[in-house]
Amino acid sequence: MADSLTDYEELAAAVLPSAVRDFVAGGSGFETTLHLNRAAFDSVTLTPRVLGGISFVNTTWQYFGGASMPVVVAPMAYQRLLHPEGELLLARAAADAGIPYTISTLSSYPLEKIAGAGPSWFQLYWLRDRSLVESLIDRAEASACTALMVTVDVPVMGRRLRDMRNSFALPPDVVAANLVDAVTEAHVGVPGLSAVAAHTASAFEPAVSWQDLEWLRSRTRLPLLIKRILDPHDAVRAVEVGAAGIVVSNHGGRQLDGAVASIDALPAVVDAVGKHCQVLLDSGVRSGTDVLRALALGASAVLIGRPLL
Amino acid sequence: MADSLTDYEELAAAVLPSAVRDFVAGGSGFETTLHLNRAAFDSVTLTPRVLGGISFVNTTWQYFGGASMPVVVAPMAYQRLLHPEGELLLARAAADAGIPYTISTLSSYPLEKIAGAGPSWFQLYWLRDRSLVESLIDRAEASACTALMVTVDVPVMGRRLRDMRNSFALPPDVVAANLVDAVTEAHVGVPGLSAVAAHTASAFEPAVSWQDLEWLRSRTRLPLLIKRILDPHDAVRAVEVGAAGIVVSNHGGRQLDGAVASIDALPAVVDAVGKHCQVLLDSGVRSGTDVLRALALGASAVLIGRPLL
Amino acid sequence: MADSLTDYEELAAAVLPSAVRDFVAGGSGFETTLHLNRAAFDSVTLTPRVLGGISFVNTTWQYFGGASMPVVVAPMAYQRLLHPEGELLLARAAADAGIPYTISTLSSYPLEKIAGAGPSWFQLYWLRDRSLVESLIDRAEASACTALMVTVDVPVMGRRLRDMRNSFALPPDVVAANLVDAVTEAHVGVPGLSAVAAHTASAFEPAVSWQDLEWLRSRTRLPLLIKRILDPHDAVRAVEVGAAGIVVSNHGGRQLDGAVASIDALPAVVDAVGKHCQVLLDSGVRSGTDVLRALALGASAVLIGRPLL
Amino acid sequence: MADSLTDYEELAAAVLPSAVRDFVAGGSGFETTLHLNRAAFDSVTLTPRVLGGISFVNTTWQYFGGASMPVVVAPMAYQRLLHPEGELLLARAAADAGIPYTISTLSSYPLEKIAGAGPSWFQLYWLRDRSLVESLIDRAEASACTALMVTVDVPVMGRRLRDMRNSFALPPDVVAANLVDAVTEAHVGVPGLSAVAAHTASAFEPAVSWQDLEWLRSRTRLPLLIKRILDPHDAVRAVEVGAAGIVVSNHGGRQLDGAVASIDALPAVVDAVGKHCQVLLDSGVRSGTDVLRALALGASAVLIGRPLL
Repeated sequence: MADSLTDYEELAAAVLPSAVRDFVAGGSGFETTLHLNRAAFDSVTLTPRVLGGISFVNTTWQYFGGASMPVVVAPMAYQRLLHPEGELLLARAAADAGIPYTISTLSSYPLEKIAGAGPSWFQLYWLRDRSLVESLIDRAEASACTALMVTVDVPVMGRRLRDMRNSFALPPDVVAANLVDAVTEAHVGVPGLSAVAAHTASAFEPAVSWQDLEWLRSRTRLPLLIKRILDPHDAVRAVEVGAAGIVVSNHGGRQLDGAVASIDALPAVVDAVGKHCQVLLDSGVRSGTDVLRALALGASAVLIGRPLL
Repeated sequence: MADSLTDYEELAAAVLPSAVRDFVAGGSGFETTLHLNRAAFDSVTLTPRVLGGISFVNTTWQYFGGASMPVVVAPMAYQRLLHPEGELLLARAAADAGIPYTISTLSSYPLEKIAGAGPSWFQLYWLRDRSLVESLIDRAEASACTALMVTVDVPVMGRRLRDMRNSFALPPDVVAANLVDAVTEAHVGVPGLSAVAAHTASAFEPAVSWQDLEWLRSRTRLPLLIKRILDPHDAVRAVEVGAAGIVVSNHGGRQLDGAVASIDALPAVVDAVGKHCQVLLDSGVRSGTDVLRALALGASAVLIGRPLL
Repeated sequence: MADSLTDYEELAAAVLPSAVRDFVAGGSGFETTLHLNRAAFDSVTLTPRVLGGISFVNTTWQYFGGASMPVVVAPMAYQRLLHPEGELLLARAAADAGIPYTISTLSSYPLEKIAGAGPSWFQLYWLRDRSLVESLIDRAEASACTALMVTVDVPVMGRRLRDMRNSFALPPDVVAANLVDAVTEAHVGVPGLSAVAAHTASAFEPAVSWQDLEWLRSRTRLPLLIKRILDPHDAVRAVEVGAAGIVVSNHGGRQLDGAVASIDALPAVVDAVGKHCQVLLDSGVRSGTDVLRALALGASAVLIGRPLL
Repeated sequence: MADSLTDYEELAAAVLPSAVRDFVAGGSGFETTLHLNRAAFDSVTLTPRVLGGISFVNTTWQYFGGASMPVVVAPMAYQRLLHPEGELLLARAAADAGIPYTISTLSSYPLEKIAGAGPSWFQLYWLRDRSLVESLIDRAEASACTALMVTVDVPVMGRRLRDMRNSFALPPDVVAANLVDAVTEAHVGVPGLSAVAAHTASAFEPAVSWQDLEWLRSRTRLPLLIKRILDPHDAVRAVEVGAAGIVVSNHGGRQLDGAVASIDALPAVVDAVGKHCQVLLDSGVRSGTDVLRALALGASAVLIGRPLL
């Protein structure tokens, strides 16, 4: 019987190909930030109160379509790597749990099909092809997604040594289903880049700016969340361009190695914009205690990624 | 020859069933707080004075019936799990050492029988059945207990993964002797809860409040101690409702994983109420040095649990 | 070839009986302070200066008879445990190195014989028999010792678990040569105490006071050093009673386990009395860098113990 | 395929003689500073900004001849120990990468030959023989070196235990090619000193002073960098004597063990002189993230040593 994430992690390790396990579990560089994420959570201690006479506990969360608890499934690419039903399976589980599922731009099922499985948000990578960006926005709106989360920390993909050592590439049956026929697939590497990193380099627009975000804000009727903010000045700017929420994150330690732990960056961001937008957090959340820690430091909800994979 | 707790721990590990050892030694969740309790004690350093010309050392303690030293046996459930004579054995040892023994609501011998073995305090869990609470108070008073310690941090039992993995349940001959015929016994689990946790969920009142404590204060002539306070505001409130003492504790790392170490929480609590009530401490005490550390930071006595088991 | 203390430690471990090695290397309790001594030194970093144009380095030290460098051999009992020539061997080596050797009250050769081997200080334990104390002072003066160091932190001996486990006792040919015929020898233990601890309990006066130190100050013409001061208030008092120096020390982690590291206690003591007396330090010194660290934080010299044994 | 320094380190360990590997990888004393260098870098976290709309990244550096990125090859002695082509190989690689190579006084090829392989700086040890110093300066200028870096922290060589244990000496075919016929070669040790340390003791002037630096400043037309500054007062003095740059360094943990980590010493030095000279840094740089960390704390460039060897 599996009782904790550690148990599930061991069970997954036993059935997943090692290159897939590394793609999911790994971080960038020396994985300093990956490990820091956990150490930082563990150093946050809680001082519980007593005798509140609490007879009814309400964990529901009201934003962006609502949730049974302040927890959202983080956007994660290519989930068919782990199971043939990929995103569909996890979207259904999220629906059962009453929490939103965030569909990745790089999902391996089409966003319409995933959105059909339960309440969803859509995550947008900024592609070089602006018409493709517009098409994805339109499709997300048409599929009843209740929030648009734009990820802005992948101008280039993090240097993930595990993937490089494994010469990691997507198998032929795993494709970026939302982008098929539009861009080069992530199946062939180039020297110094894994196939997935090479795909990112060719498809993603690295020079996205605050002006682009203003355009995006005017282009969609969905509430806008900006994912990955670590600096309070960026948080203020996000509010100014009309973001309804931000995600304090270091991309799970997968982008800039050496980046501050998101839980350590949270308090200053909350101080700066906590009254003006929803502040969500990801990167390192592994337990209900971690959710409490994030909420105690001012987050309004958390995103969980790897543990669900 | 056993000279330190480490020695005794090894000797115990050799004779106890592993599920019992885990029930005693384990903590909740990832056992972060369990380990933090020790690390926090070790980081408290003492600056001893010299040349005081001290020729006589008096370690006695004057409160709640008195003690040969500022040490009390903590309340611990179901001690027959470890030895057929269970609570009786430890109560007699406490009497020999001249320190009070705290009888648990969940003792596996009736409180009257344990109280007969030596000076005792009674620990009260707040049960759903108020008449049962009253009956326990009356019995504790009738048995010459000298303090009533109410434990207020178990609205639900901590998520103890070791017990879940071991499918831990009480053997048929170990019962909550004070509650027999009154509530479901802790012998059968339900999905996601060990048998002991299931029993707790059915028998304990989770919504106990400060108003209930005021009622309790008026219902008993015994001095009242409130166990587990970590926040200074709760400590002030405890004094306001008439507590004669509080216990700064995190339940030995067995309830909220991620909770602050009790020795780290102590100074602020002492600042808030140290002049108005006795401040006791438990969770992590393993040596005479630890007792000194707690006293140096303002505790008036400590409770010791696991090491005695 | 042995190049560092680590090398010598390994060589010693290979030839010494394990009970002797434990007696030398061990600390009290859980050896928290023993390990803290090292960690505290390692956390002190040096910021060296450059281009001073230094062509001649003078390491001599001018106090209490002088030394070729600010290093003194710490008082250590029963050195015949390690070699038949015991104290004589180490005293000769100290003389060769141009540093003072501190003769222990509990030396296994008579103090006169050791003092004959080179420049010496005498370390005094406060014995219950005042006439014996006077006799030791007279003998130290007559033997041309240049300082009298009184150790005031052994009212009872630290609880050294290694010695208890080893049932450590002195072999018949190792005796407290300065005290023969005067007190019980440290060859027979009692329940709960090693033979050495039992000897200490019977021979040492636990209630020594500042008044006793004043008497001592008037009773000897030697400069007086008080060993073990950790609290600045005690340091001020030491100056008031006429001490020429104090030793900031935790007895090498052998007395109160949990005591502050001496290098951490040093700065506050130097602030309090650094202008009024010599401040020496021991406990944890293992290298020339450690000597620099102590001097950089205000010590005027250090005592080295275990590494020399 | 080797993707990170760790990979290259393992590959190198497999082919290098262990005494050479120790000479390269080792530090002085207990290697406290060697390890501290890494721990200090890892504790510096970055807070990246987003949405800058950056479409072109320019990493070039303009000082002392310029570089494709703010990275310089650190001066390192006797590179023929690692490969027959030694300095020539690394100088060519540096030229390919567009970064300057710093020729060591103790290079195993003549400086003229190395300078011919690509853009170079020259590193000067202060030799006892002043005419030899002048000759080296003239040769560096004649060879089109674009900076003169004087190393001032080797009045005596660090106590490198690994070299002592290995009785490390240069093989006959590895010589200080710039000094041949001028000084004793580093091929024969003396008691307590490795052959390389003995050579240093005989050839280097330990009493170099700020006055000597003023002379040096007037003696050369090359911009002057002073290597190793850790104290802000020394940094101010360096600017006063006309240094165009300083290198904050602890000599890779090879000189004073216990010295502060260079990345920890950096901010105070930048505060003191950052507006008046270039502040470079070495000791512990292992990744692009480390370069970012140094630049974020005010360095204008870093030197990399061991990783390139």
